[in-house]
Amino acid sequence: MADLRRLSFNQITVNSWTLREALDGCVRHGIPAIGLWRDKVYAMGLRGAAKLVKASGVAVSSLCRGGAFPATTREERQKRIEDNLRAIDEAAALGTTVLVLVCGALAGRDLEGSRSMVVDGIAAIEPHACERGIKLGIEPLHPMYAADRSVIVSLKQAREIAARFAPESVGVVVDVFHVWHDPDLYQEIEQLQGRILGFHVSDWPVPLPGILMGRTMMGEGVIELDRIRSAVDRAGYTGPIEVEIFNQKIWDQAGDQVLELMKRRFLECV
Amino acid sequence: MADLRRLSFNQITVNSWTLREALDGCVRHGIPAIGLWRDKVYAMGLRGAAKLVKASGVAVSSLCRGGAFPATTREERQKRIEDNLRAIDEAAALGTTVLVLVCGALAGRDLEGSRSMVVDGIAAIEPHACERGIKLGIEPLHPMYAADRSVIVSLKQAREIAARFAPESVGVVVDVFHVWHDPDLYQEIEQLQGRILGFHVSDWPVPLPGILMGRTMMGEGVIELDRIRSAVDRAGYTGPIEVEIFNQKIWDQAGDQVLELMKRRFLECV
Repeated sequence: MADLRRLSFNQITVNSWTLREALDGCVRHGIPAIGLWRDKVYAMGLRGAAKLVKASGVAVSSLCRGGAFPATTREERQKRIEDNLRAIDEAAALGTTVLVLVCGALAGRDLEGSRSMVVDGIAAIEPHACERGIKLGIEPLHPMYAADRSVIVSLKQAREIAARFAPESVGVVVDVFHVWHDPDLYQEIEQLQGRILGFHVSDWPVPLPGILMGRTMMGEGVIELDRIRSAVDRAGYTGPIEVEIFNQKIWDQAGDQVLELMKRRFLECV
Repeated sequence: MADLRRLSFNQITVNSWTLREALDGCVRHGIPAIGLWRDKVYAMGLRGAAKLVKASGVAVSSLCRGGAFPATTREERQKRIEDNLRAIDEAAALGTTVLVLVCGALAGRDLEGSRSMVVDGIAAIEPHACERGIKLGIEPLHPMYAADRSVIVSLKQAREIAARFAPESVGVVVDVFHVWHDPDLYQEIEQLQGRILGFHVSDWPVPLPGILMGRTMMGEGVIELDRIRSAVDRAGYTGPIEVEIFNQKIWDQAGDQVLELMKRRFLECV
């Protein structure tokens, strides 16, 4: 089982908390790391956020998120690239080394073209990421988000894109919710040796209550979390394990209660 | 573009219609084939249904459905196999050559074990299917149904299972809604040469309104239907193309209106 030294609280899991409240929560509950979201950082301002994070002593496992590369016009694609360059700077200012990429929605109906735009987008931002010491973590999303969130839908796809770049620059974020069903899951994780930049946990309840807000707390679904975690360990990833849950029922609970349950389930299930 | 001689009306698309109404609808609209569902057949009784189908002159492209193989106990798995044997007999009585397999939900949390149960289940029913002249069509479902409907989630998986059996016995049903996102879609279809037993069309709207009832009429989503249909043609499939749509808004419309739209969109989009 993973121990709490590897636990990272992805702040979306208590969506009602501000950045300050989330950091205080980590300190109060002895959680060593946090995954940050750009909108929560903006709500406080980047400089203030960076100071607050540093003062808290809580490590930043990643910043969510860059990506969103495909668009039907060249101008719009260029805007997205510029936004990614800013995200890289923000990640550096916040003291993390990983920017998570949610690669983006289908442009029009051209799935192959959209996938090429993702490769082009990563190529466009990779030099700046290198310069700032930021690694780009391609997170394949579940295929149910292929049209509106990420045309990158499998570990194989993410691995093949990452392989075009140096392992120091571009890797893959493994989120169990998105990939648990993959018939090639364990072979793919094995092939990601040296390329895993993050590992996200949650669970897949049956029935799934919704498309975006469907995932739940570890232990309340069908994902073989411990088995996947062991495979990720064997692939050489020893970094933080983020708990990232979008779920209205969990969002409606008191943050401290969620953090307590999260810690317990992390120890029991991951 | 496909012509109307290849159109098959999967009767779930007008879910309110009885078998008799569905057959009358096909005759009225000049639709040469129908995909039947076992519950609609049962509502009339198998003998009566078989007679009615024969008298209608409408061809039966497939019967939905067998499958549901994984279960946590041996007794329950045996029950499922017996149900599949009955489905094979029903398919033969109804005059179709294809039984569609929706392979079944996760048993417990054991994804690999459940997948093995599917292979074992198909092996158990294949001799009887052969004897009755029925081909078993493995339909991989979208990965969002991996836990509760089908642990078989990709064309590759379906192809590899089918390859354990003779092409005369076991093949694959390609449904665009389930596989459009697959990064290996066109290579997989190419490799299915001689193994495609059915082709189902509908569309993927953005955003997707729900998990089970999300799909919509061709032309109202983002799937490259004509491109996929061409690939399926090139893989040697020249049989009926079923329109299969689970969608409450469509179910709430008058059946004749749905059939008119279906024919028009089939010609425009498929």
